[in-house]
Amino acid sequence: MPASYQRIVLAARPRGPVVAENFRLEQVAVPALADGEVLLRNHYLSLDPYMRGRMSAAKSYAASQALDETMIGNTVGQVVASRHADFAAGDYAAGLLGWAEMGAAHGSALRKLDIAQVPLSVYLGAAGMPGMAAWYGLTQIILPKAGETVVVSAASGAVGSVVGQLAKLRGCRVVGIAGGAAKCAHVRDVLGFDACVDYKAGRPEADLAAATPDGVDGIFENVGGATLDAALARTNAFARIALCGLIGGFNGQEMPLKNSRILLIKRLSLRGFIVTEHMELWPQGLQELAALVAAGQLKYHETIADGLAAAPQAFIGLLQGQNLGKQLVRLI
Amino acid sequence: MPASYQRIVLAARPRGPVVAENFRLEQVAVPALADGEVLLRNHYLSLDPYMRGRMSAAKSYAASQALDETMIGNTVGQVVASRHADFAAGDYAAGLLGWAEMGAAHGSALRKLDIAQVPLSVYLGAAGMPGMAAWYGLTQIILPKAGETVVVSAASGAVGSVVGQLAKLRGCRVVGIAGGAAKCAHVRDVLGFDACVDYKAGRPEADLAAATPDGVDGIFENVGGATLDAALARTNAFARIALCGLIGGFNGQEMPLKNSRILLIKRLSLRGFIVTEHMELWPQGLQELAALVAAGQLKYHETIADGLAAAPQAFIGLLQGQNLGKQLVRLI
Repeated sequence: MPASYQRIVLAARPRGPVVAENFRLEQVAVPALADGEVLLRNHYLSLDPYMRGRMSAAKSYAASQALDETMIGNTVGQVVASRHADFAAGDYAAGLLGWAEMGAAHGSALRKLDIAQVPLSVYLGAAGMPGMAAWYGLTQIILPKAGETVVVSAASGAVGSVVGQLAKLRGCRVVGIAGGAAKCAHVRDVLGFDACVDYKAGRPEADLAAATPDGVDGIFENVGGATLDAALARTNAFARIALCGLIGGFNGQEMPLKNSRILLIKRLSLRGFIVTEHMELWPQGLQELAALVAAGQLKYHETIADGLAAAPQAFIGLLQGQNLGKQLVRLI
Repeated sequence: MPASYQRIVLAARPRGPVVAENFRLEQVAVPALADGEVLLRNHYLSLDPYMRGRMSAAKSYAASQALDETMIGNTVGQVVASRHADFAAGDYAAGLLGWAEMGAAHGSALRKLDIAQVPLSVYLGAAGMPGMAAWYGLTQIILPKAGETVVVSAASGAVGSVVGQLAKLRGCRVVGIAGGAAKCAHVRDVLGFDACVDYKAGRPEADLAAATPDGVDGIFENVGGATLDAALARTNAFARIALCGLIGGFNGQEMPLKNSRILLIKRLSLRGFIVTEHMELWPQGLQELAALVAAGQLKYHETIADGLAAAPQAFIGLLQGQNLGKQLVRLI
C-alpha cells in the first residue's frame, strides 16, 4: 500500500471562466482508517457540470466547495482496506471521494458495484448520477406518452444521451440539440434520436421548427438561454419542462428567458430539480438503467483523460463542450 | 319587452395600447328564441384582462375575438323570456353574453344564481371566474401550508384580492404587490394582507425583501416582468409559482424573465393555467367562495362604470390599473 497519494484542491475561485490556476495538485498521506471506514483506490473520477457551481462562493443549492480542500467528485474504484463489515479488499464501490487517487469513506457512504454486466466506469455515467438525472426528469416530470415529441439539449452529453434513449424506448419522437455537426451525427446515428439540431449552425429556431412538425410536448433542459427559448416557442399546450441544468450560464452571465409569455399561453409546467434530493427513487432508476446497459439497449460514449493531473484541463474542456458523452478521468 | 338593444363590437384590432376607436356601439334587434334558449337582460358586464388577449389576431390559448361581433364577456342578469325548462322569467343567471344590454343563450350555457346571500354582481368577481382563478392557482398549484409566505401581484385586483384572503385563511403570511400607495393601503387595511409592496415606489426588490423575512414559498403571478423577478429572488427551496396572468405585457412587449437561473437553483415548480379549462373543480371552488362571501370572511371591492357606452373607457382604465378591485359595467 502506498504511503501517500495525489489529490487536487480548489486553490482559488474562478473570476469568469475556470482556468488551470483555480486548482492545485498536492501529495497527501494515506489516512489511517477509523472503525467503519473503507480505503479505496479510485479507478475513475467523474467530471460533471455541477462542479462549476460549487467552485463559486455564491450561495446555490449546495454549499460551496471549500478552498484548499479536495475538489468534490463522484468516483468508482476498488477497496484496498476495510474496517466495515459490508466491504472487503478487492470489492468495487462507488463513492464521493473527489479529485484524488485514493480516499477513505465510511462504508455507509459507499455503494458496492457488480461489474459482471456493467463496466465499472459506466456507474459514473449512464448507470450512475447522470443516468439518474435523465431518468428522474423524464419519468417524474416530463411523463412522456408514446407518440409525443421530446426535445433534449446538450443531447450528446452524459445526461442528454440517456434522456433521449429512454424517451425513444417509451415511443416518443426525440429531437436533440447539440453543438457541432460531429455531435449531432453521433446523436442521430449512434444514439438513435430522430433528429438533432446543431445550434452552432446559427438557425436554432428554424431548425428546431423543422424537426418538430407536431410541436413539442416535453423539454429536458440542460443548457438554458436561446435554445430553451427556441424549444418553448414550439411547445404544445400542457407541455412539461424538466430543468436539470443551465450550463449556458456557468460563468455567471444572466440567462434571461425571453419566451416567458409562452409559459402562460401554453399552460406549461416547469420544474427545476437536483437528482440527489430524490434518493428514494435511485434503486428503481438505477436498476432500469443498469439492465438497459447490460442488454445493450442503452448506448453510451466516454471521453477519457488519463491521470489526475489531466483533470483540470478536462474539466475546462467539459465546460466548453469539447467532450462527447461522459467525461471521465482514468486514475489507474 | 324592447325591440332592440345596444351592444359593442370589436371594430379594429389594437396596434399597441387599446384605444376607444377599437370599439363600436351598435343597436341590434332582440332575437327570437329557439327551443332551449333563454333571453336575458344583463345587469352587469365583467371587464377582465383576458379580453385584451382576445382582441389580438395572434394565436393565443383561445380563438381571437372576431371583428364586428359582440365583444366577449361574462355577464349576470335576469331572465326576460325562456324556452328552457330550468329557467323562468325573473330568474337570475350568469352567462357569457358579452358587451351587450341583452342577449340570448342556450340554457345549458347559463348558471342560475341565488342572490339571497351573495349580491348579483359578486358572481362576476369573488364568487365567479376571478375568484375561481384565485382558488385554483392557490389550492391546486401553490398548495400553501400554514406559516408559509405567499406573494401576490396585482394584489388589489379581482383575482389577487381573493388569493391573498384565501391564503390568510389558510394561515399564511401574505404579501401583496400593487401600484400606488392607495391600492397598497386597501390591500393591507381592508383586505388584511400582512404587507404590500408599492412597485411604483421604485424599490421592488428591497421592499419585497423587507416584507418577506422568511423568504417566499408561493407566488401567484398576475403581472410578470420585474415584479416576478423580484419575487423569484426571494424564493425558498421548492417554492411554487402559479402563473395566472402577464398583464404587464399586454401590449405585446417582450417580458424576459431575468431570474431563470433561480428556477433551477431553488428547484421551483411553475405552472401556467387557464381556469376555464378546469370546470370540474368549479362547483367545489364556487361553493367555498360563495360561503365565505356570505359569511363576510371574503371582502371585495368593485369599481363600477355606468352604462354600456362607458365600457371601452373602463376597459382601457383596467389595463392601465386605474380600477380598484373588480371592474364592472352596470347596465340597468
